[in-house]
Amino acid sequence: MKKIAVDTYEDMSQLMASILLGEMVKDKRSNISITGGSTPIRTFEIMIEKYKTMKEVFSDTYFYNFDNAEIGEDKKSTTNTLLNNQFYGPAGVDSKNIKLLTMNNYDQYDQMIKEDGGLDIMMIGLGLNGHFCGNEPYSTDFSKGTHRVKIDKKYPWYSVWEDICPDGNIPEYYVTMGFKSLLKVKHLVLIVNGRAKAEVVKKMLSLDITNEFPSTALLLHPNLTIILDKEAASKL
Amino acid sequence: MKKIAVDTYEDMSQLMASILLGEMVKDKRSNISITGGSTPIRTFEIMIEKYKTMKEVFSDTYFYNFDNAEIGEDKKSTTNTLLNNQFYGPAGVDSKNIKLLTMNNYDQYDQMIKEDGGLDIMMIGLGLNGHFCGNEPYSTDFSKGTHRVKIDKKYPWYSVWEDICPDGNIPEYYVTMGFKSLLKVKHLVLIVNGRAKAEVVKKMLSLDITNEFPSTALLLHPNLTIILDKEAASKL
Amino acid sequence: MKKIAVDTYEDMSQLMASILLGEMVKDKRSNISITGGSTPIRTFEIMIEKYKTMKEVFSDTYFYNFDNAEIGEDKKSTTNTLLNNQFYGPAGVDSKNIKLLTMNNYDQYDQMIKEDGGLDIMMIGLGLNGHFCGNEPYSTDFSKGTHRVKIDKKYPWYSVWEDICPDGNIPEYYVTMGFKSLLKVKHLVLIVNGRAKAEVVKKMLSLDITNEFPSTALLLHPNLTIILDKEAASKL
Amino acid sequence: MKKIAVDTYEDMSQLMASILLGEMVKDKRSNISITGGSTPIRTFEIMIEKYKTMKEVFSDTYFYNFDNAEIGEDKKSTTNTLLNNQFYGPAGVDSKNIKLLTMNNYDQYDQMIKEDGGLDIMMIGLGLNGHFCGNEPYSTDFSKGTHRVKIDKKYPWYSVWEDICPDGNIPEYYVTMGFKSLLKVKHLVLIVNGRAKAEVVKKMLSLDITNEFPSTALLLHPNLTIILDKEAASKL
Repeated sequence: MKKIAVDTYEDMSQLMASILLGEMVKDKRSNISITGGSTPIRTFEIMIEKYKTMKEVFSDTYFYNFDNAEIGEDKKSTTNTLLNNQFYGPAGVDSKNIKLLTMNNYDQYDQMIKEDGGLDIMMIGLGLNGHFCGNEPYSTDFSKGTHRVKIDKKYPWYSVWEDICPDGNIPEYYVTMGFKSLLKVKHLVLIVNGRAKAEVVKKMLSLDITNEFPSTALLLHPNLTIILDKEAASKL
Repeated sequence: MKKIAVDTYEDMSQLMASILLGEMVKDKRSNISITGGSTPIRTFEIMIEKYKTMKEVFSDTYFYNFDNAEIGEDKKSTTNTLLNNQFYGPAGVDSKNIKLLTMNNYDQYDQMIKEDGGLDIMMIGLGLNGHFCGNEPYSTDFSKGTHRVKIDKKYPWYSVWEDICPDGNIPEYYVTMGFKSLLKVKHLVLIVNGRAKAEVVKKMLSLDITNEFPSTALLLHPNLTIILDKEAASKL
Repeated sequence: MKKIAVDTYEDMSQLMASILLGEMVKDKRSNISITGGSTPIRTFEIMIEKYKTMKEVFSDTYFYNFDNAEIGEDKKSTTNTLLNNQFYGPAGVDSKNIKLLTMNNYDQYDQMIKEDGGLDIMMIGLGLNGHFCGNEPYSTDFSKGTHRVKIDKKYPWYSVWEDICPDGNIPEYYVTMGFKSLLKVKHLVLIVNGRAKAEVVKKMLSLDITNEFPSTALLLHPNLTIILDKEAASKL
Repeated sequence: MKKIAVDTYEDMSQLMASILLGEMVKDKRSNISITGGSTPIRTFEIMIEKYKTMKEVFSDTYFYNFDNAEIGEDKKSTTNTLLNNQFYGPAGVDSKNIKLLTMNNYDQYDQMIKEDGGLDIMMIGLGLNGHFCGNEPYSTDFSKGTHRVKIDKKYPWYSVWEDICPDGNIPEYYVTMGFKSLLKVKHLVLIVNGRAKAEVVKKMLSLDITNEFPSTALLLHPNLTIILDKEAASKL
């Protein structure tokens, strides 16, 4: 594992974008999985800017989402909607370059990725409760590849879904790549910023591997880079 | 081959630095070969800045020069002096991370690189006369790995050495990695900027492979990225 | 380059099969390009035997032919017919695992291979006239990827086509992967056996790179293994 | 994971040797870690035979042991003595190609391997009690790289050491690569033969990950091949 403490959120984002670019400009197919959310906002801005002039260069870069759910009456895809809004749309990524993990194809997704040559880079964030991708406290089984997770009231993270679905129409399952899928990613990059994550980072780096705090397992990854801004690193 | 035309010299330098960083932050040994000279000046500035805070992160990055000569009474190493002044010194690269190609070890250099796991990235420039590394017009033999080149008056590039050695004390040989060595580099990156190079780039991309213009052969490389600023790309 | 002189044709074939198997049993997609003809007959026998019990294991191994022509009134594919008869058929390779280079798709073939993750291994033979794949004396342009070659009376190898097409119905073109395509193959393996090839091997290893004897260029490949039986190595 | 059930011990050994050979004949450095013991005896015979004629070809293959202890008054190295007797000696592997894990260097061993470019292949066996390398029931901590293990009476496997050291002079510690080290191996190959292992294989493939049966964790490896003879596969 390489832990890189940079100064600011901007530095973290620039370095993350560098990692993506360094792969995407190679004369080969690149398969990349990215998180949405607040942490990568600036990384996306940088990459969207690159797409404006280098879109042709990136024509053999493919994107794979690592989790998903379908909510509402129209079964709207949570992750893909988010990524479309945050990155694919503004960057103008061709739909042929976007490979969807859905509620229907999750059990063939790892095989599809394998046939596509494997993931070169995955950019992930770190959940406040220690989750990574959709691998949440207590429900995580580290032996799994891409799988379906029951959204069960017995889990402490159930309340998140109550927030996502204020109409109470909570889906029965969501899908996520599992720890086994992530171990196959050639370069796993974890980006973390802000004081709110300082304690989470500390736990991740100091706790034993436990499904109460799933990101503890990430340290086993054979090629992991963790990029922290000063605030996220403030308790290390 | 991927040809990337960016806007400015700054853009070219930022992208080149991204490629280097993207490799160097992986949790593995990185072996990198870099050119000195005017083209990478800004790239070096960026990388020197990174070394200030990330030196520990780069402790498993190793640098390999791709050509060399010894000049003057004290047999001063041309390339390594240049790289020391431009990059290794200001960045504070440890001497253990600098692997020297010298007049004495050139015939074991390819083997050494092989034992070290091969070069991950080589950053090169494009000579006005079409040379790459020390592979000069008319003297280049594309079948060679790292080898010694006689500095012979019969070659048009002899005059360069008269400029380098105004005291007339021109060395008999210099050493350089050859085309065969470069084909083994996992990612070859060619950076070119400025109007003066526009015609050279055009030739390189349009001429048949010829030892009169050695860089014509680079297009055979299995993973080549060419980064051009707007001026260098102006005749394409 | 690694040159391996084994004792017998059987030894050569066993080692060649080992190289293929060593890749195909990995838990990843394997992309492989193989020659037909007399040299690999025994290699095919070994591999066909493996397919009998390990077919499921090889379900993510894909085969790519490296040259092709269409002959006769029914436009029969030369290479694929040969490979079907010699290997794909007897081994029971699924048609989904066979990727065809045809007269129609040759200009997208390198791109297709790139999207498929690149070729892991190519097994080739050595032509008596120094050709490799369909890269023949005098007509070879080393700068080319997969391309179409005009079957022109001006070339010394035209007579081969007169033999292949005794009805005089010689096709106008054939297609072949070029030197540039081969340089992208991760492991290139050349198998040569028999006294008739001894002089050819010697030439290949001693001549300068020349399109009069195209296989001279193969020594530039970044990861080349040459397997010779005792007879083929007898003039080295 | 790829599970390959072959017919006989001979088949298992031939396939294992093929995997090793397929890597070792590449024109690059190969780093390989091998188990000693009864399972690989025939694999060693095949490889020793290869060394007789191909030793030069293997001059850039390096071997790394994955565990070790020092026993007796002369602190004899257990694993290296075994590997010397079974393989290195009979094959004539040069001492420069043998990299030792010892009681003294274990805390720098993972770093050394990283600097050497990482392990390409590790061949391991499966312990009757579910151990892999020196990762034994109850004492295994999956988060560890190469580490030192206390030989403590409290563990059920203590009795093995009583057998190894009939004079009662049991060492205080042994060293072993850990699960984290193994996850970095590019291709992990597990060979298992014989009816006595049938139940063990079944457990490994069906139990949840548990340190009571450490090999359950191996299924997480990103590129794992399991080769079983018919008897070892008889309970699947």
